[in-house]
Amino acid sequence: MTVSVGIVGATGYTGVELLRLLLKHPQVSIRLVTSRKEAGVALADVYPNLRGHTALRFTDADVAALAECDVVFFATPSAVAMHMAPALLQAGVRVIDLSADFRLRSAAEWERWYGLEHACPEQLPHAVYGLPELNREAIKQARLVANPGCYPTAILLGFLPLLKAQAVVPDLIADAKSGVSGAGRNATMNNLFPEVSDSFKAYSAAGHRHQPEILQSLNAVSAQDCSLVFVPHLTPAIRGIHATLYARLLDVEADLQQIFQCEYHEETFVDVLPPGAHPDTRSVRGGNSCRIAVHRQPGSDYVIVLSVIDNLVKGAAGQAIQNMNIMHGFDESAGLDSIALLP
Amino acid sequence: MTVSVGIVGATGYTGVELLRLLLKHPQVSIRLVTSRKEAGVALADVYPNLRGHTALRFTDADVAALAECDVVFFATPSAVAMHMAPALLQAGVRVIDLSADFRLRSAAEWERWYGLEHACPEQLPHAVYGLPELNREAIKQARLVANPGCYPTAILLGFLPLLKAQAVVPDLIADAKSGVSGAGRNATMNNLFPEVSDSFKAYSAAGHRHQPEILQSLNAVSAQDCSLVFVPHLTPAIRGIHATLYARLLDVEADLQQIFQCEYHEETFVDVLPPGAHPDTRSVRGGNSCRIAVHRQPGSDYVIVLSVIDNLVKGAAGQAIQNMNIMHGFDESAGLDSIALLP
Amino acid sequence: MTVSVGIVGATGYTGVELLRLLLKHPQVSIRLVTSRKEAGVALADVYPNLRGHTALRFTDADVAALAECDVVFFATPSAVAMHMAPALLQAGVRVIDLSADFRLRSAAEWERWYGLEHACPEQLPHAVYGLPELNREAIKQARLVANPGCYPTAILLGFLPLLKAQAVVPDLIADAKSGVSGAGRNATMNNLFPEVSDSFKAYSAAGHRHQPEILQSLNAVSAQDCSLVFVPHLTPAIRGIHATLYARLLDVEADLQQIFQCEYHEETFVDVLPPGAHPDTRSVRGGNSCRIAVHRQPGSDYVIVLSVIDNLVKGAAGQAIQNMNIMHGFDESAGLDSIALLP
Amino acid sequence: MTVSVGIVGATGYTGVELLRLLLKHPQVSIRLVTSRKEAGVALADVYPNLRGHTALRFTDADVAALAECDVVFFATPSAVAMHMAPALLQAGVRVIDLSADFRLRSAAEWERWYGLEHACPEQLPHAVYGLPELNREAIKQARLVANPGCYPTAILLGFLPLLKAQAVVPDLIADAKSGVSGAGRNATMNNLFPEVSDSFKAYSAAGHRHQPEILQSLNAVSAQDCSLVFVPHLTPAIRGIHATLYARLLDVEADLQQIFQCEYHEETFVDVLPPGAHPDTRSVRGGNSCRIAVHRQPGSDYVIVLSVIDNLVKGAAGQAIQNMNIMHGFDESAGLDSIALLP
Repeated sequence: MTVSVGIVGATGYTGVELLRLLLKHPQVSIRLVTSRKEAGVALADVYPNLRGHTALRFTDADVAALAECDVVFFATPSAVAMHMAPALLQAGVRVIDLSADFRLRSAAEWERWYGLEHACPEQLPHAVYGLPELNREAIKQARLVANPGCYPTAILLGFLPLLKAQAVVPDLIADAKSGVSGAGRNATMNNLFPEVSDSFKAYSAAGHRHQPEILQSLNAVSAQDCSLVFVPHLTPAIRGIHATLYARLLDVEADLQQIFQCEYHEETFVDVLPPGAHPDTRSVRGGNSCRIAVHRQPGSDYVIVLSVIDNLVKGAAGQAIQNMNIMHGFDESAGLDSIALLP
Repeated sequence: MTVSVGIVGATGYTGVELLRLLLKHPQVSIRLVTSRKEAGVALADVYPNLRGHTALRFTDADVAALAECDVVFFATPSAVAMHMAPALLQAGVRVIDLSADFRLRSAAEWERWYGLEHACPEQLPHAVYGLPELNREAIKQARLVANPGCYPTAILLGFLPLLKAQAVVPDLIADAKSGVSGAGRNATMNNLFPEVSDSFKAYSAAGHRHQPEILQSLNAVSAQDCSLVFVPHLTPAIRGIHATLYARLLDVEADLQQIFQCEYHEETFVDVLPPGAHPDTRSVRGGNSCRIAVHRQPGSDYVIVLSVIDNLVKGAAGQAIQNMNIMHGFDESAGLDSIALLP
Repeated sequence: MTVSVGIVGATGYTGVELLRLLLKHPQVSIRLVTSRKEAGVALADVYPNLRGHTALRFTDADVAALAECDVVFFATPSAVAMHMAPALLQAGVRVIDLSADFRLRSAAEWERWYGLEHACPEQLPHAVYGLPELNREAIKQARLVANPGCYPTAILLGFLPLLKAQAVVPDLIADAKSGVSGAGRNATMNNLFPEVSDSFKAYSAAGHRHQPEILQSLNAVSAQDCSLVFVPHLTPAIRGIHATLYARLLDVEADLQQIFQCEYHEETFVDVLPPGAHPDTRSVRGGNSCRIAVHRQPGSDYVIVLSVIDNLVKGAAGQAIQNMNIMHGFDESAGLDSIALLP
Repeated sequence: MTVSVGIVGATGYTGVELLRLLLKHPQVSIRLVTSRKEAGVALADVYPNLRGHTALRFTDADVAALAECDVVFFATPSAVAMHMAPALLQAGVRVIDLSADFRLRSAAEWERWYGLEHACPEQLPHAVYGLPELNREAIKQARLVANPGCYPTAILLGFLPLLKAQAVVPDLIADAKSGVSGAGRNATMNNLFPEVSDSFKAYSAAGHRHQPEILQSLNAVSAQDCSLVFVPHLTPAIRGIHATLYARLLDVEADLQQIFQCEYHEETFVDVLPPGAHPDTRSVRGGNSCRIAVHRQPGSDYVIVLSVIDNLVKGAAGQAIQNMNIMHGFDESAGLDSIALLP
């Protein structure tokens, strides 16, 4: 069985990553790829790595044409998918939105963080938050999947086992570091090479849009209400997220390694490292894995979780394809089994 | 049909790259992987990107065990393969040597550049220089393939069409730039991050070991004896070679674009870019392609060729697998059709 | 007035940074620079940036020759200074030790973290911890200064005002990120460019040697005993430390910006940024400043402090010179007033 | 004696570098710094490295105010200085233009490369090309200095001694590599970190604007007309230019090392390295030096010259200040004697 796929807004980094992966997916045929800006241009002219792998050209974002696909991925900025998704859903198309439009259950909360009115709040209750390790059963039935953000993916996979096990006080701290591709492919002075290379900084320390999205899923599994301090940082790497997570233990005798191994032993894309290990982001470069290690310091009652992903794969395009696989009953790792590029 | 493969000396960067590619090759079964230093250790403990993809462990380099493979790859430093290859060839094993031991036809020349006596000069006449675009027919029959160096691959693919077409004066200049993985995975102060990051330098400007290897193949196709000035440089990137090639045109009216397109139009792994393009090394990161562009400057009688490869793939492990595919009659791109990782 | 200076072990990164700064210090004359390994070699042959700025050569580490200096800096690994310092102090030389030998007041604690017996525990009570913003008066009188580690400098300058003001619960979390030069100039595979470039990782998450040193100074100003979780990370930059600090506020109404501005308004080398700012490490590259910003998130009772330094300047050589200036009654910023290199 | 200085267009990378250097120049007082875009904003708010070093604010580019300066630097894009310089020269102000407006003697040639009409061709004969090692005497008397481009500086300093000595055939090849700051501080997708990091490419291989500027000065010293093939490349470093230069020797017995040492033995800012050395760009990071090495390969009749500078210092702001020093009879190295930042 093969599904025909459409991609809306494929000129950004998550778009090209979707193309890199979907062009080699054994059960996918890419039907159309849209970009207002680049309509008519060959994909390979924008992304030289695709030369020889596809003859497709960008087209305008025509809903009628998209409605003939089995699945449509939105790799667009905020506030695009919410306008186009209803018509596609109506037409029976499955929608996987890599933007933030459908991630928050509360339209009010969404409007507070994104600064404009939500165009289809009536779909929010039907959208499934596409973190397979949390919501696999719901994803199987979903027509509309809200693909998680990159930071939320790395942070949730690190915190959820501790909350499920009621092992920690739910006052959580997430210090997260992202490669620069996380900022997207936009002409801006801030992310020029000479501005970010050989440097390091925090940003949005007073509040980042991914905070409510993370908190919503933490609270979904936590026995008590959680609080979350989340500080994102920019590191001079192209890809990769490294989340360093801190929480106070309720039971200092808890077998933390065991909690994580139990939680994830059947998960293809979550790899719990042996005690003492430190995952590096390059070990997941280009791959769909999340690698996690758990640490404690002598005499301390804090647990430290280290969680790494490739922000463009498990943090975006790869996870979207994992969701597509689940929705269609494919092998969950179809098209996602390549080995990370190291060095 | 499946071949069983052995890899000798797989702890370096070309070794892990062989593993990354061979583990996903549809017609390969990896039988053993040797490393004196790491014998007994799981591959995935040395290379975290392999976790979940293989349970293999390094073993000692035992010729008897290697002799049961169909093919053995040497990813060793110089002067290892020349000691072990004869016994394996004797046992009917095909050998693909990624080191320099069998690249020069003349043992005397080899000894001059590598500073020691060659251990099996009698094999040199039988070794086929494994540049498929030059020697495909010979490779089909070969028992022993000398896999080209990374610089030679990028430079030869750029110069050969011009020499074959007798389009240039054979006094050639190759200014080549390599990522740091080309220097190998050896504990050395010179290649520490703080020594090479945010910097750029030439090295071996008075003569580099790859010079005779390049010259030998240039002369194989040139009507007249060639001279070659070759200067390698180190650029602060992990992977990638960019060769910038200069030669004086014999006929300033020659259609250079046409010469390259004709030469390579049937080659899967050589991509001649449209006029005016500039290949970047990231467009081949992790892929087996060589991308080439040809330029001239107004009023100048020089041709400028830009040629890029991934030094670990088309410049080492990928080309070795391409050779293996040819030797066994497999599809030449088996296991090598992934798309370069960009960004 | 001019002081004559000796430097022991100047071949590492803190050594060359001391040289870069001291060669331009208006009141310093460098008398001798020692290195067992490079004795006889011109400094400029090891460090090409020094060509044209000095004709000095490395000499052997001869205590008699060092005893004729006014000040001796130790830019050595652990366990060198503790053997040589007593004789120099005896001879009336002032000693500034950039290694960890004299940083901990307790010999037992030192021995636990450094794994060998301390050679001169009798000097520990006389050693002054050389963080000028904390101990300026004691440094003025000191004969032996223990120059703080790089992580401790960035972390202490960020936490001390909060503890002095009794503004926070003393259960502290320090998530710190360092450029690779912090690992020193040692031939090792771990810090090769291809191993750390384009990647990010934590290390020593189960406990790092700088932890007790930080805790000791935190407790020196805290009304209550502190606990500290400290996790260091490696970021692909040459220089720079970014510490992200977390603590729970005792009084959520506290004027945090005011606390920091009051504490540091007379400090030349601590720059409290305006509200909302995020310091980047490049803004202190090559300079002796620590730049600090304070943040809170809506509804959260945690304070977030961002603190950046150049690990080789304020985190090592620059602070050592600042201490030398204080010890000799020089202008505290003599030789340290250059502007950070940006971009 | 102190000169009062104005800087026009100081928000780019050469602008901030001028500020970094001039703020510490012992004989300079900065009177005004203009920027249309940032008028009213404190310099330190745009460039955090300047915090604590200046209270200046950007002002509008008012010719009357600039006319009260002794010297005005233009750190503007092309086609700004040519409109403002005449009035300033008229008012007796010395002008140092870091843009290309006055570099070419021929207005027609300028118009061909820059694509618009020159606004004051009558000044071109009076402009002195500000390469001190070539034109020091003329610079002493100049009212208008055209500060050389970054590529031309590195390339000319490498080729001029060979041409003066009539040692080479004047068919020259310059393969040059630049850090990304050379592309300026403009919001553009091409120079985003994820686009250029971990990659390498050539650009403008069919012709670059610096070519005629280089050729003009080569021909000024060459006995015969020169031809020049010049290919620029982008390397993932912030600063630095590395030029690799190739020419055929007329006399293969020539003592090349001697030619360079003779030419430059009295030059403060040109450092001829000993035989066999390879300069790296980091050895001049932040400094005003050009470091040069000369090589030959066995049996080859080509000379290879390696020449490195910091593009923002000797290739722009530093050389501009060197010119200012010469024009005013100051010590040529005033304000320029800092040591390069390494590592």
